Amino acid sequence: MQESPKTLREKIRAGAYTGPTSGLCLGYAQTNLVVLPQQYAYDFLLFAQRNPTAIPLLEVSEPGERRLQVIAPGADIATDYSKYRIYRNGILCEERTDVVDLWRKDFVSFQIGCSFSFEDALLEVGIPVRNIEENKNVPMYNTNIPCASAGIFRGNMVVSMRPIPYALIPRAVSVTAAMPRVHGAPVHIGTPSQIGIRDLANPDYGEAVTIHPGEEPVFWPCGVTPQAAILNAKPEICITHAPGHMLVTDLRNAGLRI
Amino acid sequence: MQESPKTLREKIRAGAYTGPTSGLCLGYAQTNLVVLPQQYAYDFLLFAQRNPTAIPLLEVSEPGERRLQVIAPGADIATDYSKYRIYRNGILCEERTDVVDLWRKDFVSFQIGCSFSFEDALLEVGIPVRNIEENKNVPMYNTNIPCASAGIFRGNMVVSMRPIPYALIPRAVSVTAAMPRVHGAPVHIGTPSQIGIRDLANPDYGEAVTIHPGEEPVFWPCGVTPQAAILNAKPEICITHAPGHMLVTDLRNAGLRI
Repeated sequence: MQESPKTLREKIRAGAYTGPTSGLCLGYAQTNLVVLPQQYAYDFLLFAQRNPTAIPLLEVSEPGERRLQVIAPGADIATDYSKYRIYRNGILCEERTDVVDLWRKDFVSFQIGCSFSFEDALLEVGIPVRNIEENKNVPMYNTNIPCASAGIFRGNMVVSMRPIPYALIPRAVSVTAAMPRVHGAPVHIGTPSQIGIRDLANPDYGEAVTIHPGEEPVFWPCGVTPQAAILNAKPEICITHAPGHMLVTDLRNAGLRI
Repeated sequence: MQESPKTLREKIRAGAYTGPTSGLCLGYAQTNLVVLPQQYAYDFLLFAQRNPTAIPLLEVSEPGERRLQVIAPGADIATDYSKYRIYRNGILCEERTDVVDLWRKDFVSFQIGCSFSFEDALLEVGIPVRNIEENKNVPMYNTNIPCASAGIFRGNMVVSMRPIPYALIPRAVSVTAAMPRVHGAPVHIGTPSQIGIRDLANPDYGEAVTIHPGEEPVFWPCGVTPQAAILNAKPEICITHAPGHMLVTDLRNAGLRI
């Protein structure tokens, strides 16, 4: 029997699982994380509002609050992601499996929808998801697609890529378009150089996957986009999840469809 | 020939039109307005994030900025709505047709999607829109549906109502669900008392419309919701549009479909 999101979160909280979360608790939504001091919270909230496909917010916490209320009641933001990244002044300083001793009373956390949610929907209609087939972290790439800036936050969109057989691409678009709270429709289909990606074999985050003959790479806005913006903004401190290491929520993916 | 949004905005700016905007520049999106001093902007942005069906943000301006950039480039926030309401400490003090002399360097404006956009989509598929047929301002009602609160902002949802023939209700749901940036699907269908509405003949905003035999009242989240929250929050000053008196943008309604 598959474990519940709550059981998985307890296991992660106890340090008993620290790996990527793709494919775990199938059917439940996972989220990306950004934690910032309150002084940057307005700029980031506005950055999300202006870039809703890359940064669809599912829950924003009150200052200092470690417990989630809506998407995973009782979950601990500081322990229940399987891996965290700590950025200081825009520099990635370390990865760790909890951030309890770093937590501050002025921290505001942003939980961001994740494309894992629509992978479920793609599989349901018979569209293959290569990163799941190959048991890999989805490949993610920096692009030349500019985000709308807000305050200190600016940068280009990060995308996740899934190879889709030609004949299934329209269906992949319509299925994901109906899930705007988890990135929605693709932002680009085909030729990677059109959006500034030089080499699909070398993703900027995650792992490369096989592209079979008769397939096109299809690119969706990705919740790692804020991490690129944080490199530019250089806040004194920022905590994110490590790419692919998400929080598993109590939300059903099916509930995120319009 | 129908006039363009830009021409209508210029007419409104010149004071040559001060009426409701329903039915004008058909095909173009109209927006609700909230203007607040910067000190309240984070709370309001978060209130919108937590209540996206009632408060779908289409553009948020920089502090002090009167010109729109995205939804109606060049439009003047202080003159191009056909009527404004001024709230001081939560009390509606006056209505006027421009707010130029009240504008402050710390004002942040929020442009909010409007249900007029999906009226177009309903008409296109043959669903009647009574307030357009009867040339009235759509009826709006306070409800007992609580919004998720954020900072100083809390209150119940305001809804707009359109009577729909029974057989067409499912289609009305699916058509509007596909437009989440302009309130999306209905929040309630049928019995008004279920959501705390006592008398459809006496709307809290706008004008009552005829309900024919064989029709049910259908209720959608409404962009007037913030005005109810402002009564509770009592910010020193807040400017909104007068209900039904919107900004006509350059966005096509069809472009707001997923």
